[in-house]
Amino acid sequence: MNFEHLRALAAIIDEGTFEAAADLLKISPSAVSQRIKALENSVGRTVVRRGVPCAPTEAGAVLLRMARQVQVLEAETRHALGNGVSSRTVTPVAVNADSLITWFVPVLHEAAGWTDTTLDLHVEDQDHSSRLLRQGDVIAAVTADPAPVNGCRVERLGFMRYVPVAAPALHRRFTNGAGVDWAGMPMLEFNAKDDLQRQVLRSRGVDRTPPTHTIPSSEGFLAALRAGLGWGMIPELQLDTDLADGTLILLEEQAHRDVALHWQTWSLESERLNRITAAVRAAGRRQLRTTGQDRGKAAPGRP
Amino acid sequence: MNFEHLRALAAIIDEGTFEAAADLLKISPSAVSQRIKALENSVGRTVVRRGVPCAPTEAGAVLLRMARQVQVLEAETRHALGNGVSSRTVTPVAVNADSLITWFVPVLHEAAGWTDTTLDLHVEDQDHSSRLLRQGDVIAAVTADPAPVNGCRVERLGFMRYVPVAAPALHRRFTNGAGVDWAGMPMLEFNAKDDLQRQVLRSRGVDRTPPTHTIPSSEGFLAALRAGLGWGMIPELQLDTDLADGTLILLEEQAHRDVALHWQTWSLESERLNRITAAVRAAGRRQLRTTGQDRGKAAPGRP
Repeated sequence: MNFEHLRALAAIIDEGTFEAAADLLKISPSAVSQRIKALENSVGRTVVRRGVPCAPTEAGAVLLRMARQVQVLEAETRHALGNGVSSRTVTPVAVNADSLITWFVPVLHEAAGWTDTTLDLHVEDQDHSSRLLRQGDVIAAVTADPAPVNGCRVERLGFMRYVPVAAPALHRRFTNGAGVDWAGMPMLEFNAKDDLQRQVLRSRGVDRTPPTHTIPSSEGFLAALRAGLGWGMIPELQLDTDLADGTLILLEEQAHRDVALHWQTWSLESERLNRITAAVRAAGRRQLRTTGQDRGKAAPGRP
Repeated sequence: MNFEHLRALAAIIDEGTFEAAADLLKISPSAVSQRIKALENSVGRTVVRRGVPCAPTEAGAVLLRMARQVQVLEAETRHALGNGVSSRTVTPVAVNADSLITWFVPVLHEAAGWTDTTLDLHVEDQDHSSRLLRQGDVIAAVTADPAPVNGCRVERLGFMRYVPVAAPALHRRFTNGAGVDWAGMPMLEFNAKDDLQRQVLRSRGVDRTPPTHTIPSSEGFLAALRAGLGWGMIPELQLDTDLADGTLILLEEQAHRDVALHWQTWSLESERLNRITAAVRAAGRRQLRTTGQDRGKAAPGRP
């Protein structure tokens, strides 16, 4: 295998076409084709699915991940040798939406002091994060899934607690002598994969789905809760003063759900990766819970 | 064309597989197949690309949109006839991330009072919104693009102003006697399509791209600005007290960018669609600017 060939593959996937990859690498499109052909001959399989944009085949994804790892190592070696000190390498990391705007914020503060790297955040749900790790699009990810992606290390960061809240007016409209009318009160969902609200309904023995609004944005979800559009599960970390000032009320003390969060990274000895891992670990320790209901199983949570 | 056939098509696309569509429609998978085959015979083209999940072909997308429109009309007719009053129909709407958490919030408040519909929001960039409108996945969208999708109505809502801001510490580090060092100061981008920062750099004659962090979340973007990770363009509507309390400072008075926002809806006489249009129009009028730099051309803006 040849570094130049791997670099050509990464450029095609990053840029989408052979022509754009050629521009990036400052070589001719036919030179790009030749490198890919050489790569395909050496592994005996097709590596790029031609299309707009081009996509890696299964074999291509494996090679692409190696290409990314080589890029990381190369950049660090260059940096250690004192070449290209002024240029920064990109650190691609996947993080779920709710984490990014809550406990992950101190990582951004830390990263503001790093002069050798920039962050390329991917805000993705957990399934997609695993795919991004597998094909080398990110080198690390916050995931709800404790099962390591092949070739990755995983550690548990802690638990993110979600609590059921609603605007007072909505709560009044759907509360009677028997308590909250869970089957009738409109509900919010982050997206189709967000099972947190339904978990609460099931635990209350409610099998009818109430009218459901879908709001796939962490901040939008909170805005919709405040607007009284529906009730929903929200990270306690995102609540701030809403409970204290009565903008939102806690529906039931006991109906919270704890989602275990994990940090997955490539098994790669990289100073840069170790540094971000240390920052993420410290941020998690400061704001996530150390114990939760969920004891390590994958909990279908909020992406 | 037959309503049952269209309904089968919509169910397959919504649920992903013929089997799941059969479950939803409470018919057998072979009955679903027969309906699709009948639909394909009647239009003389394939309408579903078999896969996991199934996807509409080009012809299928045209039919799918008709299917959605029929669903809207059917639901309203049912409602008008007094049947199924207690059930709600879903209103799928696309809105860009920055709008959702700023001027669009009053629409959520309005919608909290509607008892006949739930919102299914899609937070998408403008290109994707057009595709969603075209294939009938949403019936209305906030877009930056003034060109109506075929079969849609479009009206301008107003202008969203973006201003360049940074944390004071970052600003100090990259300001010298000559002013802001635009080529050196790290920058934030929402994603690869977010051209707002580069527009400002170009207008300042800067052709080198500074170190760039990518943060594809409106709230995360603001958190990263506050953390001093980089400078960036932020909706003035999102700034709140940040400028007043010195958390962020305005880099240049004159470097703002105005993005024209439009409301596109299907050309369909629907009471429900008219109601959300009225709410969106009113919310836009309250918070968006009526004039801007950009005079109606499509401005590549923040998704």
